[in-house]
Amino acid sequence: MTSPRVYLAGPDVFLPQPTAFAARKKALCSAYGFEGVFPLDAEIDGQGISKHELALRISRANEALIRSCQLLIAHVTPFRGPSCDVGTAYEMGFARALGLRVFAYSNVADDFTARSSRSAGARPRADGSLEDRDQMQIETFGLADNLMLIGAVEDSGGKLVAISAGKDQLYTQLAAFEACLAEARRMGGVPQLG
Amino acid sequence: MTSPRVYLAGPDVFLPQPTAFAARKKALCSAYGFEGVFPLDAEIDGQGISKHELALRISRANEALIRSCQLLIAHVTPFRGPSCDVGTAYEMGFARALGLRVFAYSNVADDFTARSSRSAGARPRADGSLEDRDQMQIETFGLADNLMLIGAVEDSGGKLVAISAGKDQLYTQLAAFEACLAEARRMGGVPQLG
Repeated sequence: MTSPRVYLAGPDVFLPQPTAFAARKKALCSAYGFEGVFPLDAEIDGQGISKHELALRISRANEALIRSCQLLIAHVTPFRGPSCDVGTAYEMGFARALGLRVFAYSNVADDFTARSSRSAGARPRADGSLEDRDQMQIETFGLADNLMLIGAVEDSGGKLVAISAGKDQLYTQLAAFEACLAEARRMGGVPQLG
Repeated sequence: MTSPRVYLAGPDVFLPQPTAFAARKKALCSAYGFEGVFPLDAEIDGQGISKHELALRISRANEALIRSCQLLIAHVTPFRGPSCDVGTAYEMGFARALGLRVFAYSNVADDFTARSSRSAGARPRADGSLEDRDQMQIETFGLADNLMLIGAVEDSGGKLVAISAGKDQLYTQLAAFEACLAEARRMGGVPQLG
């Protein structure tokens, strides 16, 4: 029997040594009975093409890899702001529309309202809701990030795990990632793609 | 003949008067021969349910609205950081996987590398690439945002338009949005959903 394939979405591709980090994640996937699929797995020949064309080829390759998977584990540690990396959010939506089971993990455990308020300011509106310094409302649902991301996880049958890491391990701690794998194995099986 | 339906993704739902803003966008859609569909169009009864359950119902309603559309125009003005709102990015991925034609507009015209560098610091790595103060690489493809978002727009046959707005109109200027509608009309037709 082949192992279910798990797409490893996240800003991990931006780490100084992404391939070594991917190997650590893939080894954990194997230990839990899954095959980890990392964005950089696609071999892309960048010779003789523009940077723009290279970017498009990477995008296409990542989408093809997601299509080859049954699950996705998104690394949603806040990235350059109170929310996760937008490429990761995009891939969660892409996977959700295809029917994959979507998990997520974060190495920051405080909730989204607190993070948004710290980052963008927070003041009460007349109706009691909160807004930031650009007068944009701050979500106060008590979730880990924007409600679309959380909906994808919960409605696909996945789970979000958040375990705070020290600053030196903000993007590299794998405790919450491993907890997602344990949950995925405990659930058994994978969703039927429709 | 019914007008093609365009899902209006964006952080517009967080504006102080989202329904009035939606009406402006919908009127422009009509003028270009489209029917605008706004996230808040779904009537959701929040009585007697938890905030968590309400969030999930909003997420489901938005996904159902996207499924009912043939095009999506994403408002990708940077939101609480150098990238767009993650809910919007999620919806772009969701729409792309379903085969919708994806457009995007931004009211900030400088490129992503410059914005990320300003927001998160930038220093050269030994290999000549750029990294931020968390040692995470900064994309230097000369794009408007993360390459997954740009890939969705270009490969679906859509277009991204960026026209800088003054601070007081950062989230409300509609010149670039209208340019997307003009492009969509010029293209004629809508993609066949597979």
